[in-house]
Amino acid sequence: MTISRADCAALDEQDPLRDFRDEFVLPEGVVYLVGNSLGAPPKGAAARVARTVEREWGHDLVGGWNAAGWWEQPLRAGDRIAPLIGAGPGEVVAGNTTSIAIFQTVAAAVRLRPGRRVIVADLTDFPTDGYIVQNLAEVFGHEVRDIGDIGNIGNIGDTGALEALDQDVAVVLLSEVNYRTGARLDVGRVTAAAHAAGALMVWDLCHSAGAYQVDVSAADFAVGCTYKYLNGGPGAPAFLYVNPRHHGSARNVLSGWYAHAEPFAFEPGFRPADGVRRFGVSTPHVLSFAGLDAALDIWDRVDLAAVRAKSVALTSLFIELVESSGAPGLRLATPRDPAERGSQVSFHHADGYPVMRALIDRGVHGDFRAPDILRFGFAPLYLRYVDVFDAAATFAEVLHRGLWDAPRYRSRLTVT
Amino acid sequence: MTISRADCAALDEQDPLRDFRDEFVLPEGVVYLVGNSLGAPPKGAAARVARTVEREWGHDLVGGWNAAGWWEQPLRAGDRIAPLIGAGPGEVVAGNTTSIAIFQTVAAAVRLRPGRRVIVADLTDFPTDGYIVQNLAEVFGHEVRDIGDIGNIGNIGDTGALEALDQDVAVVLLSEVNYRTGARLDVGRVTAAAHAAGALMVWDLCHSAGAYQVDVSAADFAVGCTYKYLNGGPGAPAFLYVNPRHHGSARNVLSGWYAHAEPFAFEPGFRPADGVRRFGVSTPHVLSFAGLDAALDIWDRVDLAAVRAKSVALTSLFIELVESSGAPGLRLATPRDPAERGSQVSFHHADGYPVMRALIDRGVHGDFRAPDILRFGFAPLYLRYVDVFDAAATFAEVLHRGLWDAPRYRSRLTVT
Repeated sequence: MTISRADCAALDEQDPLRDFRDEFVLPEGVVYLVGNSLGAPPKGAAARVARTVEREWGHDLVGGWNAAGWWEQPLRAGDRIAPLIGAGPGEVVAGNTTSIAIFQTVAAAVRLRPGRRVIVADLTDFPTDGYIVQNLAEVFGHEVRDIGDIGNIGNIGDTGALEALDQDVAVVLLSEVNYRTGARLDVGRVTAAAHAAGALMVWDLCHSAGAYQVDVSAADFAVGCTYKYLNGGPGAPAFLYVNPRHHGSARNVLSGWYAHAEPFAFEPGFRPADGVRRFGVSTPHVLSFAGLDAALDIWDRVDLAAVRAKSVALTSLFIELVESSGAPGLRLATPRDPAERGSQVSFHHADGYPVMRALIDRGVHGDFRAPDILRFGFAPLYLRYVDVFDAAATFAEVLHRGLWDAPRYRSRLTVT
Repeated sequence: MTISRADCAALDEQDPLRDFRDEFVLPEGVVYLVGNSLGAPPKGAAARVARTVEREWGHDLVGGWNAAGWWEQPLRAGDRIAPLIGAGPGEVVAGNTTSIAIFQTVAAAVRLRPGRRVIVADLTDFPTDGYIVQNLAEVFGHEVRDIGDIGNIGNIGDTGALEALDQDVAVVLLSEVNYRTGARLDVGRVTAAAHAAGALMVWDLCHSAGAYQVDVSAADFAVGCTYKYLNGGPGAPAFLYVNPRHHGSARNVLSGWYAHAEPFAFEPGFRPADGVRRFGVSTPHVLSFAGLDAALDIWDRVDLAAVRAKSVALTSLFIELVESSGAPGLRLATPRDPAERGSQVSFHHADGYPVMRALIDRGVHGDFRAPDILRFGFAPLYLRYVDVFDAAATFAEVLHRGLWDAPRYRSRLTVT
């Protein structure tokens, strides 16, 4: 059975999420498959940010801290992110960056497991996670144990490594969805394996939050960014989840005045705030929070089950169209079973970099990750089935006709 | 000799900085003396931030990382801040918050002084500094030694405490200008005293950067915020200075991917970048950097000697006008010698909170810090001599006529 563009247009007609596309700014002539790196801007972002600059800051000046509620942004945004990750109110605080949140949560976890000296991580995962724990371990006198490339096909269902965790392990840090392959770990199974070994579990949700309904309720801590599927803007605040069972005991090594029980008492001695507020750090980045606010105005209305259903449909369609085209040189890097992937499809190609540049030149925007990965992210809120059809057709044409094999695509620039 | 409003208007006429006022948004009918808490918005901020949201993010999407130079914002902004604090190019990186930068620099300093277990700080200073080092010391097994209220009149010129520093001290953390009193320490003398004891010196420049020409060149590390005198916007990125003599040896415990020698090589192992880049952390808060950019567009053109001269003139004028009015109940909290203060004037008043609310009600915006401090910040770029005259006149009237002693001013709200 061949899928036609008309079939895809019919699917778009029936898509329960179709109206959300109108709420995003998308450049003409581009199929934007990089929403897993930086989400497209909500149309409301410009006005929301302008309001903060012109009315809140411009009119209220320092009074904006109260009048516009700037001080409460980290907890207010946290409460809006919470339902997207299976958390409750008062369990998530937003701010700073994912790397900083990893530092805070892993440091808190090792302090809750005194005597255990090992931090388990996948060092082939997005590097900042590994860098943060390597530097933290060096200072704290801990050891980082590399669990291996758990996000690779073949390893994805294998929790054997986790079952072998021993009594030295204080904490396990893993990404739910792998940034290269899109492979998705089973949060429930992995968390249970960590707990069975007496360790705590920290999840990095950068590539899962906003892609489907995450459930961190069994985990101890979680972190993630808001600028990928959540569309909060470049460098938007990260988020940090603490399971309520740790609210009384977990300590935040990065406790600035936001984390104090009474920040405006200006007391000389530190006393931690109750609840997740103690994992705040200091003054929020107000303009960046304004961008995130605009995105959460959309997410407040989204049915995550519909997002997941469409994500599975889009990614499955892309795989099927690309593979059935017989385009040469490709090997799927993403698990074929939808249950084992996020909202991303990656292919290996020996000349991945020039291939991606040729695609971008033709309006299909994905990205490249060394050594040979072509990544395509599928944001269900603004992508159509016809976009997937067009992207796959262009991809097939570029490969069949060898259009990527030109000097202008082979010259290497910085890739972000 | 009595100073008249006409005298002040004449001073404004001759003010070499007078044209800068037109570059800021200032509400009608307000004398804004809270620029030491949140600086007024540059008029260019709205357009600059809109450009980032609408053109860079909206048009280039993920391509903004290269096309708009987002990735380099921390070092680019750092290089523009550097001349304001006596640093050179490649010595300052911007991003995150002051609290986080304090954590990074103090943690780096103690690692450069192994065997020394004491962190010296003034716990009556702005509390986040003390909170950060208390939490850091607990984890690192260090001890915080409180040097006492060094920002109080009477203590300001007294470096006796510093001369008594012993061989246990790894690092001294102090603010150049005290947030309550505006008292200014002698950076050269205090840094020399710390060095004489074999300790490293970290300066917090939150209340000095943008108020005059700072000189940190003898210090080891410095941090500061950009949302006070620098007008970068609410929660604008902080900055962090590392003396070049430590670039090769200082380690950043919060090393995320920004701090890596080759972040886009996605290597599993951490290798620190050269220079101050190794004190970056991770993905920059792009929208908040846009606000800061607009402010630095102004600072690039400012003569800091003129800023200091006007600052001394404005603060001296305010003290003279207020004190000569005979307003009851006041005691100056700021050093009378201009060399010993920043760009702020504070008075003690037993009923400081209702007095400040009565002032704000009459368009004179200062702020209050418990237990009894009325703070007035003087930002030379947008304040006029006539503003100082009007503020002092209102202040005198409120006190002489007891206008603050009304129930509506005594009811206590959150004070930020």
